[in-house]
Amino acid sequence: MQFGSDNQAGASQPVLDALLEANHGFTHGYGNDNWCEKAEDALMDVFGCKLDVFFVATGTAANALALSCMVQPWETILCHHHSHILLDESTAPEFFSGGSRLIPLTQHAGKLEIRHLKKFFRNVSPEIPHTPSAKALSITQTNEAGQVYTEVEISSLCSLAHENGLHVHMDGARFANAVASLGCTFADISWKAGVDVLSLGATKCGALAAEAVVFFRQDLAENFIHRRKRSGHLLSKGRLFGAQFVGWLKNNHWLELATHANAKAQQLARALKVFQEIVPVWPCQANEIFITMPRQLAERLQAEGAEFYQWPIQTLPNNYTLRDEDVFVRLVTSFATSDEHIRDFCDRINEFKASAP
Amino acid sequence: MQFGSDNQAGASQPVLDALLEANHGFTHGYGNDNWCEKAEDALMDVFGCKLDVFFVATGTAANALALSCMVQPWETILCHHHSHILLDESTAPEFFSGGSRLIPLTQHAGKLEIRHLKKFFRNVSPEIPHTPSAKALSITQTNEAGQVYTEVEISSLCSLAHENGLHVHMDGARFANAVASLGCTFADISWKAGVDVLSLGATKCGALAAEAVVFFRQDLAENFIHRRKRSGHLLSKGRLFGAQFVGWLKNNHWLELATHANAKAQQLARALKVFQEIVPVWPCQANEIFITMPRQLAERLQAEGAEFYQWPIQTLPNNYTLRDEDVFVRLVTSFATSDEHIRDFCDRINEFKASAP
Amino acid sequence: MQFGSDNQAGASQPVLDALLEANHGFTHGYGNDNWCEKAEDALMDVFGCKLDVFFVATGTAANALALSCMVQPWETILCHHHSHILLDESTAPEFFSGGSRLIPLTQHAGKLEIRHLKKFFRNVSPEIPHTPSAKALSITQTNEAGQVYTEVEISSLCSLAHENGLHVHMDGARFANAVASLGCTFADISWKAGVDVLSLGATKCGALAAEAVVFFRQDLAENFIHRRKRSGHLLSKGRLFGAQFVGWLKNNHWLELATHANAKAQQLARALKVFQEIVPVWPCQANEIFITMPRQLAERLQAEGAEFYQWPIQTLPNNYTLRDEDVFVRLVTSFATSDEHIRDFCDRINEFKASAP
Amino acid sequence: MQFGSDNQAGASQPVLDALLEANHGFTHGYGNDNWCEKAEDALMDVFGCKLDVFFVATGTAANALALSCMVQPWETILCHHHSHILLDESTAPEFFSGGSRLIPLTQHAGKLEIRHLKKFFRNVSPEIPHTPSAKALSITQTNEAGQVYTEVEISSLCSLAHENGLHVHMDGARFANAVASLGCTFADISWKAGVDVLSLGATKCGALAAEAVVFFRQDLAENFIHRRKRSGHLLSKGRLFGAQFVGWLKNNHWLELATHANAKAQQLARALKVFQEIVPVWPCQANEIFITMPRQLAERLQAEGAEFYQWPIQTLPNNYTLRDEDVFVRLVTSFATSDEHIRDFCDRINEFKASAP
Repeated sequence: MQFGSDNQAGASQPVLDALLEANHGFTHGYGNDNWCEKAEDALMDVFGCKLDVFFVATGTAANALALSCMVQPWETILCHHHSHILLDESTAPEFFSGGSRLIPLTQHAGKLEIRHLKKFFRNVSPEIPHTPSAKALSITQTNEAGQVYTEVEISSLCSLAHENGLHVHMDGARFANAVASLGCTFADISWKAGVDVLSLGATKCGALAAEAVVFFRQDLAENFIHRRKRSGHLLSKGRLFGAQFVGWLKNNHWLELATHANAKAQQLARALKVFQEIVPVWPCQANEIFITMPRQLAERLQAEGAEFYQWPIQTLPNNYTLRDEDVFVRLVTSFATSDEHIRDFCDRINEFKASAP
Repeated sequence: MQFGSDNQAGASQPVLDALLEANHGFTHGYGNDNWCEKAEDALMDVFGCKLDVFFVATGTAANALALSCMVQPWETILCHHHSHILLDESTAPEFFSGGSRLIPLTQHAGKLEIRHLKKFFRNVSPEIPHTPSAKALSITQTNEAGQVYTEVEISSLCSLAHENGLHVHMDGARFANAVASLGCTFADISWKAGVDVLSLGATKCGALAAEAVVFFRQDLAENFIHRRKRSGHLLSKGRLFGAQFVGWLKNNHWLELATHANAKAQQLARALKVFQEIVPVWPCQANEIFITMPRQLAERLQAEGAEFYQWPIQTLPNNYTLRDEDVFVRLVTSFATSDEHIRDFCDRINEFKASAP
Repeated sequence: MQFGSDNQAGASQPVLDALLEANHGFTHGYGNDNWCEKAEDALMDVFGCKLDVFFVATGTAANALALSCMVQPWETILCHHHSHILLDESTAPEFFSGGSRLIPLTQHAGKLEIRHLKKFFRNVSPEIPHTPSAKALSITQTNEAGQVYTEVEISSLCSLAHENGLHVHMDGARFANAVASLGCTFADISWKAGVDVLSLGATKCGALAAEAVVFFRQDLAENFIHRRKRSGHLLSKGRLFGAQFVGWLKNNHWLELATHANAKAQQLARALKVFQEIVPVWPCQANEIFITMPRQLAERLQAEGAEFYQWPIQTLPNNYTLRDEDVFVRLVTSFATSDEHIRDFCDRINEFKASAP
Repeated sequence: MQFGSDNQAGASQPVLDALLEANHGFTHGYGNDNWCEKAEDALMDVFGCKLDVFFVATGTAANALALSCMVQPWETILCHHHSHILLDESTAPEFFSGGSRLIPLTQHAGKLEIRHLKKFFRNVSPEIPHTPSAKALSITQTNEAGQVYTEVEISSLCSLAHENGLHVHMDGARFANAVASLGCTFADISWKAGVDVLSLGATKCGALAAEAVVFFRQDLAENFIHRRKRSGHLLSKGRLFGAQFVGWLKNNHWLELATHANAKAQQLARALKVFQEIVPVWPCQANEIFITMPRQLAERLQAEGAEFYQWPIQTLPNNYTLRDEDVFVRLVTSFATSDEHIRDFCDRINEFKASAP
């Protein structure tokens, strides 16, 4: 009953196998090895284009380094009010960028929409040098409400951003889940839709610690190697990253992992529908489920070993009033989620109901 | 017809006279002179308490230095959504603090209210170390909508902030105007109400370039001298600041200056009431007037030499819909505003009306 | 013939085995797992004291994060003029600390000595706030010239540093090699000798990517979790680090690895002595050899597949004049260096000599 | 007997007069006023070229802002080991540049010489991205040992720096004194000699607080307005700066001030020659005198009201051994130094000698 996060599972066997194979013998350090080269080639294959790619160990590093290449310290980054870069990465964006600012555009919506961006551009006319100007838009795919942006949505956001002189960053910690959900290609929802820089995460989807910062615009990548080194993110034994990505990309293993996680989420979401006490907050589109449930039930489940987190109530949609006896909960599935986890979870809910007066 | 800003006037004669007097002879450098000492004594007198005070040349420096002493780079600063530190000081707060974050609490209100602060504390439960925690509240007196916080309002904001472990900063770029408006003492709306650190501005009220960062809590001032020096704000000929403050504080000259500016604003606001095309947006409480007026009128006035700024429409109150033919305008008076300026301005409006079809 | 760096080998089998074992099943994220806990316990055992320990992926991160906890941005860090933090970590110390400064004390010596520190303290009297003050001393064990500080040397450096109000940091990227070389305990050359914070590296000695920042003074560790998170160094699947350290520390595996590397270096150094064209620059004390050799020989060896680096000539000792036909070279051994590597290397040198006119 | 620093005098009367004149009436804020415009024109006149110029209040701000426009945070700045940016401006260069590093090239020489620069370039081959690369050279004119670089010296330093891809910054806190000493033009020792950016100080030479950052290369100035604003150095009543520079430049008033200061230094240096207990350390080339004198004499003079500073002994030349009974002392003259100051000072020395056993 491990629904706490997709980072609570280990690595998949094929990813581990690649790592074990890569461990043999000597290589050059600092990413100048065959495994990193192979991983870069595999990424160009899967994206179907030339690109500059750099590996780091965490999503926070990937996002903050990417953004620091896109804005000056006196410029701002537009984002969703739930975005991971705003709520879950301490002040990493400020640290890496030398003090640029995040501006949340939304207040209650599950997705950042074209209307939010339009409203921002309509109202703002920065007084240079007094008011910081927007220079980047960051969107998350799959986003923090478990919602998947369609190709059309991404394209229109990117177009409007570009028209206004902004670069576009995508936080793709769950990018593979989105691709699996949409049945599209890596390219469709990244560079073809107008994304300039992508943080591509493998960690949440079956790797141990493997994130790629993918630049579709070479000019933005110019200083990346300096920024990575001085922030301590250049690994000496770089094959650790190369190998994980090789294993993850080979034979579309990533798709297998993401499809499994998504399918288990759908299965769980369907199973939960029979319980009227449990109310979905956002539609389940990838591998995350957002629901409300009675506090007593939540506590009972956790006492019996179920792992999941209560979610910040300020991320509830506007029209949503959480009853005092309820809690807001997030459930996450992963490549390692089994039917048994789901069955156990539902059994416990049934037991709780049976025992209730 | 100079209503652009209170920083478009020069210095008052008594302030200049002090400067001329201070210019004679030799002194120690870097603020270790008699004039700075006298200014510090005068400030202790006017505040009626012991305090640590440091002089700088700009309000941005005063605010950003003050805040950098109050928060760690991974903590946040709560503020009003119009606040000068948020909209008009580039990313100075981020720069000086090493990357801490501003969080605007309000969306439409003219003042930051206790309900905004309560809502924030109710909803937020930072996940350490993922989510940045709030560590300071910054309020502006007189604020950016020209509104004056009462002693009671400040006290209740400070109490709630302190209960939640926050320090309180006050941006007092127009502090003297607020004191004059309320008829209170410097102490009443600063340390007695719970303010921990005050940016006290003389520049907008008759000085040339003189801001004091006033610490009512000695522990927070600990590193100020290092922060001021490394940001280039330690003047070698410190008497420039000391003299201005001596002149400004002597014989309650500040009160004379602020009272004049406030009175002229009231006079202008009353005069404008007769024009039904001109609608007040916020009540006039100190030396600023916020109104809407026909675009044609605004352009005619500016063409005839009137100085004032159109104001960002996103700072309009929520229930306010600006008609397409109108503009949102700010008028500011100063110690140097004369009856003639006001008479001229109204005459031009009358002429415009007379010439209209 | 892989003598380029000890980071060109992979991980040892026991370290890998621990990782494979740790990969099973679900754990809490962000280091709150059993493996990290076990690793912390094992570290307390091997150091024989209570300590605060945090894991990161690179030595640069470990060093820069450690130092950022020890100095304010307006303070300085004393170090050796070859030190890795000065020459090989870009401007990471400045980045993480918010702008503090490194001051190299030595000019030609292989080790930082008590006389260097004494001279510094004798000459310096910082004018506050104009001149930055020293607040930390950083020494490297095994150092960048392959030299090992004795317990007595470390103790006397730490004592003098502490007397002058400085904290002491040790860059222990090759700490295990030093312990193996001295035949002492972890404690003897760290906290017992006065070190306040240690960057303990396992990566160069048989791990893949595993560095521990070890605080012997709890007060200095206070903000570490914030600094690690906002610099992107908090891994979600923290067991990656925990497992490596468990494998590395279990059954004194680290000692086996370090002893092997050191022994191979001694073996190689002895073998090289027979070649009069090859001149040792520093004595071989751990797993690094610094020599000069004819440029033609170096090029021939590299052409035949030998891996090693020419070393910066400004790190040569003062009395050393490098002849135009010679180059300065560093050879590094690791846990993976075999007799065959050494034999091959010497065979090639003999062949070169035989073929020379 | 005020020889502490040239910043211990006030402003000259013509500078004050300009300020008083500028104080009348209303102007636009933030440097968009007639006085700033006039000052810019006057600077283009005196330099005889087009330039981008920005005013700030302190030399530290001027230097650190200038340098921050010339290097990336992972690059370094070469300088003299006495340089003000290294010893007297806290860690301002690091703060403004986001963490770039100063590298002192000299160890004992009074001036930075072409041989120092050559040695640096000969020895260094940065390993990108591990080792920070040099990107700027900063020289001080008149320098911190009171020495004046000739046109030829500056030209050759600039040429070598440019050949190696470095920009050249000049700290001109006492630039006018150097021009007066050399009898050259502003252009001769700035842009004509290859300087890219000059911090031109008026403060030490008769202004109150007026420094100009002068860019001879427009591309380097690109982000200056953002950097100045976010560091709090954009004055609202900008005419304060404009007026001072207008007064300072008009009718070559600067030359009058600098010539006076230099002449008084020469006069004092000559007068001191008769005292064999007083030994010059550096030749007097502008308005500073560096000498050693008996500690007892120094203390007696200070007790009798003479103002001067003991100077850091680590800035003594290499071949200089300071006797225990002596102290190293700096004497500075200014536009306000009178014959009487000098006569008094010498009289006291004579009295001391007469009273000695």
